[in-house]
Amino acid sequence: MAVAVGSRVTFEPGGRVLVAEAGQTLLDAAYAAGVPLDGVCGGRGICERCKVVVSHGTVDAIEARGGRATGEVLACLARIVGDISVEIPEASRIEGEQILTGMERWDQLMSAPEEIDVVHLAREVASVAERFADGPLAFALPLDLPPPTLDDCLSDAARLARELQRQHGLRDVGVPVEVLRAAPATLREAGWEVNAVLARTTHGHQLIDIQPGPGPGMAFGLAIDIGTTTVVVHLVDLGTGVTLGAAAAVNRQVRFGDDVISRIIHAGEPGGLEQLRTAIVGEINVLVGTLARAHDIARDEIVAVAVAGNTTMTHLFLGLPPAEIRRQPYIPVATAPPTCHASQVGLRVHPRATVASMPGVSGWVGGDITADVVACGMDRTAELSMLIDVGTNGETVIGNRDFLVCCACSAGPAFEGGGVSSGMRAAGGAIQHVEITDAGSLAYETVGSVPPRGICGSGLVDLLAELLRAGYMDRAGQLRADAPVVREGPNGPEVLVAAADTTMTGRDITLDSADIENLLRAKAAVYAGAALLARRLGVSMSDIERIYVAGGFGAYLDIRKAILIGLLPEVPLERITFIGNGSVAGAKMGLLAKSVRRRAIEVGRKMTYQELSVDGAFHEEYVSAMFFPHTDRGRFPLACASLKFD
Amino acid sequence: MAVAVGSRVTFEPGGRVLVAEAGQTLLDAAYAAGVPLDGVCGGRGICERCKVVVSHGTVDAIEARGGRATGEVLACLARIVGDISVEIPEASRIEGEQILTGMERWDQLMSAPEEIDVVHLAREVASVAERFADGPLAFALPLDLPPPTLDDCLSDAARLARELQRQHGLRDVGVPVEVLRAAPATLREAGWEVNAVLARTTHGHQLIDIQPGPGPGMAFGLAIDIGTTTVVVHLVDLGTGVTLGAAAAVNRQVRFGDDVISRIIHAGEPGGLEQLRTAIVGEINVLVGTLARAHDIARDEIVAVAVAGNTTMTHLFLGLPPAEIRRQPYIPVATAPPTCHASQVGLRVHPRATVASMPGVSGWVGGDITADVVACGMDRTAELSMLIDVGTNGETVIGNRDFLVCCACSAGPAFEGGGVSSGMRAAGGAIQHVEITDAGSLAYETVGSVPPRGICGSGLVDLLAELLRAGYMDRAGQLRADAPVVREGPNGPEVLVAAADTTMTGRDITLDSADIENLLRAKAAVYAGAALLARRLGVSMSDIERIYVAGGFGAYLDIRKAILIGLLPEVPLERITFIGNGSVAGAKMGLLAKSVRRRAIEVGRKMTYQELSVDGAFHEEYVSAMFFPHTDRGRFPLACASLKFD
Repeated sequence: MAVAVGSRVTFEPGGRVLVAEAGQTLLDAAYAAGVPLDGVCGGRGICERCKVVVSHGTVDAIEARGGRATGEVLACLARIVGDISVEIPEASRIEGEQILTGMERWDQLMSAPEEIDVVHLAREVASVAERFADGPLAFALPLDLPPPTLDDCLSDAARLARELQRQHGLRDVGVPVEVLRAAPATLREAGWEVNAVLARTTHGHQLIDIQPGPGPGMAFGLAIDIGTTTVVVHLVDLGTGVTLGAAAAVNRQVRFGDDVISRIIHAGEPGGLEQLRTAIVGEINVLVGTLARAHDIARDEIVAVAVAGNTTMTHLFLGLPPAEIRRQPYIPVATAPPTCHASQVGLRVHPRATVASMPGVSGWVGGDITADVVACGMDRTAELSMLIDVGTNGETVIGNRDFLVCCACSAGPAFEGGGVSSGMRAAGGAIQHVEITDAGSLAYETVGSVPPRGICGSGLVDLLAELLRAGYMDRAGQLRADAPVVREGPNGPEVLVAAADTTMTGRDITLDSADIENLLRAKAAVYAGAALLARRLGVSMSDIERIYVAGGFGAYLDIRKAILIGLLPEVPLERITFIGNGSVAGAKMGLLAKSVRRRAIEVGRKMTYQELSVDGAFHEEYVSAMFFPHTDRGRFPLACASLKFD
Repeated sequence: MAVAVGSRVTFEPGGRVLVAEAGQTLLDAAYAAGVPLDGVCGGRGICERCKVVVSHGTVDAIEARGGRATGEVLACLARIVGDISVEIPEASRIEGEQILTGMERWDQLMSAPEEIDVVHLAREVASVAERFADGPLAFALPLDLPPPTLDDCLSDAARLARELQRQHGLRDVGVPVEVLRAAPATLREAGWEVNAVLARTTHGHQLIDIQPGPGPGMAFGLAIDIGTTTVVVHLVDLGTGVTLGAAAAVNRQVRFGDDVISRIIHAGEPGGLEQLRTAIVGEINVLVGTLARAHDIARDEIVAVAVAGNTTMTHLFLGLPPAEIRRQPYIPVATAPPTCHASQVGLRVHPRATVASMPGVSGWVGGDITADVVACGMDRTAELSMLIDVGTNGETVIGNRDFLVCCACSAGPAFEGGGVSSGMRAAGGAIQHVEITDAGSLAYETVGSVPPRGICGSGLVDLLAELLRAGYMDRAGQLRADAPVVREGPNGPEVLVAAADTTMTGRDITLDSADIENLLRAKAAVYAGAALLARRLGVSMSDIERIYVAGGFGAYLDIRKAILIGLLPEVPLERITFIGNGSVAGAKMGLLAKSVRRRAIEVGRKMTYQELSVDGAFHEEYVSAMFFPHTDRGRFPLACASLKFD
């Protein structure tokens, strides 16, 4: 393999230039340059989403095709061997992500709570109100200091302490030596009119920076959901609570394995943990860079970070070895990891930004689930509630303010766009809504109303339900070869969702039998977990007063259709609420209200874990669920009736 | 100038090898190799104490002599231009330092308090007892953890927290993420039998490391006195309180200026602060390395550090810009700097070792003085006491448990060995005791009973007093040319203390008129400060019930002779107690008892500062004191009587 050191790579449009490392792939170089590319396979040459055009120079397209290449290449398989220019087609970009990651609902809550009348939203609003009680993890306060005189000759540190107490009632504020090193210059250059940036600590506050005033200080925060497949970052103004933007990408750890277990195994190899840690931290740094540029803020103005993820993801993010999670007796290093500074984990924000992880319960129930629970508020009501989080790991929680029981089962990333040939995240160009018209043709709607480039979770749910409803697919998931939208493809019958001449990528968007099988398995696992947990608790679905559905489907989910395919149990529609990405919503609540973290710890203490993998009945439940909507029609009477099968 | 990159330098005896940087001086290289050399001029080619022999290869002896050199060179002026071997003569080493830095008195206190009956010692013992009440800044506790099972499946972090509470009653122990990263391996490899290394924090404890057990954990600490001229490091076993060893050297910042003011000016130049910071931190690192090797402990086992120094030295050590200390209204960045981790200041001990600075009072009264006060215990008694600290800056404190008033005046480093041609620190070969025999000849005693290489503070006091007593020197400091020990030297009459053939260096040890002048000025400044402070408080010397004398004179100080030369006021001898290096003793108390730091803060709050530089009477006091013992014989009636002058 030819290797060049210090090749200049120019990315267009935009003109960003990077001096690439020897043998670096174009995908890595693009990330390093802050130009993240699309992809769901983690850079293994499988998903073919990271296509770029080499407009000047050549690359080694080593793995898939071999030899030197120009023109269109997969960035993940192209190694840099000299100075090049690269064009990134619109279809390979992921900036479109910034608009669709669940933030709309949150901002709706923040801006107009009175217009929202469903019960759970009222509870969420109550949670939002908490932040006014105990405030965000970090914040900026104006501080107007009297300049020292011979009669008032306190040291700078003592003066800051006195005025923080006098002007804001804050006592015993900790001051790191690094802040003191810069303090004399900042205080004097700012004419003693500054903003104190403070972080809440276990016992009080820490002064993490001094910004020159006058005028209000800037303090921004990040809420981050680290999923096994997808990472979502929200940028939040800590002063107002407003979400300024969001960005998401496939978790680049995917290249080291699709699921939690394979990541844990990789972490046990020499250097593996560090590879996984830097993959996720580096990726978050790129997403944060994109957000910071888009909103014209400095990285140093980001002073608080709340992270939610399953226990393994949280371990990998913090650099904690996860090996014991999969060895009996399944012991994580920490379920409620300590708060630390950004510099300790390598996040490129303010070095002393507070980084708090949402506390989890055990190796298999992480901070993403407690985040879900606090986001939907099921821990605060008497209602018997169920939470179903549809992710790579499918989790179900049943309970209320008195008890919480949880289970988890591996569902795979199908509803997040993984393992489905045209699957994608809910980003620009994703087909998010599908209908089969009375004329038998397929109509769809994309995120951003641009030409389609794939299908996101909500679109897949719609598509399956519509195929069933129209009778183009049977209950076992077999496509009817003579249906109007079905054609014979390379792997048997397939649905042509959008023809090449209408798509952003210039390729057909299809759904074949293998895709349907993956979706069927995923929905069966999710449903089986929920159903078995209820059974073990002696609860019937009709006893459950409210079901919250979380997951990265997209901006919305058609509950009716999710029931129709048997992903969700059949209960009266008004009992089901889609809460979107509950993990990032819970993290954001934790970011904006320190008390939420305490609440999440309480949730973790209260919650018990039901291990379904050792329950013989699980496989039985799972197999029964491998039909649309289910083998047992008695569980889906209305759905089956509406489908008019047999 | 010829410059070589990566030259191998071998130091003998010992055979240490260093790959030196381009153009590095031999003195710097020796420090970097952990072989500190003697010197009092900070590497300016003045004191000629750092002589080494280049046994193989050549160096550029650039400044003093020019051209290539072999054989004997001054390490501070010799730049490395290629591979060389260097012999370090015994006279140029500073290892001898390890035995004489005030630790003997402390260990005496620790081991046999019942044998000591003077009042102030009893108080010191009371202070020592404090450490059993609230203990050292950091300590190791055995922790025997039950291994996790399916029924006891807490995370490692939660298990540690539970057992710290169960076994030691410690709640809410903070755990840095770095400790958790290593915890799973350590816990399992040690079979769950470990030692928890804990540091005390403002609100509780932090787990700074986990050591494999079984057996008692090792926790060592450092007490450091950073003087303007001398830095002293004591290595302490935090478990027993025993001082294992001590090392000292000239503060290498001396090369950037002799006194506090010139250091502050240098700190204001581009890169100056960082030069000063790394000079002192690097030097402490070398001394610590020497101590660690000598006592066979790992740097990582050093988990707590207490530092005492004047306010500017503390600023430079922590990297705090000191500029405002010398500008009206004289504002330090901090007088009670925050506790931090060793990694934040660059100390090469355990990266999370607690580094606490003794709190000071103002820009001109630092943690060295509060350390002196807590060490002598004058803040706890009803007795009207005076503390005189003879250092580069001479400080006096008058007060008791109800009030404390302090002043400072620049005395120069004469009694620490600076500015006196044969002056040196109280290290091996220092003449520490001098007598003029009845036969008129000079007898002396050296530290370590080895051939002499210079005269330390106590020896200088003795020498001056004996010259006066024998009538070889008059009250103005003029040597009598016909006295038996006086000869005509290059700069006029000089005392031949030891002839070349009897010394370690092979050079005469002498005291000339310029040396005497420097000593006279230093003693005059110290006395004038003490006398004027008493006058301003309306206190006569006879009212003062106890005088504590601190300073780097050596292991002891002949109080009678210190009065005879007018360094100390004439009061009944039994009222005066020499406490040695009170700064390092106070720091050690702070290291061993966290409450001492609180006591020092209280001392700082209570103490007021009397600015003598603006007091017109100071010059008058100073000039009056420029005689042995004093112009005003009424102040030294017994001394003058014994001298039988005129």
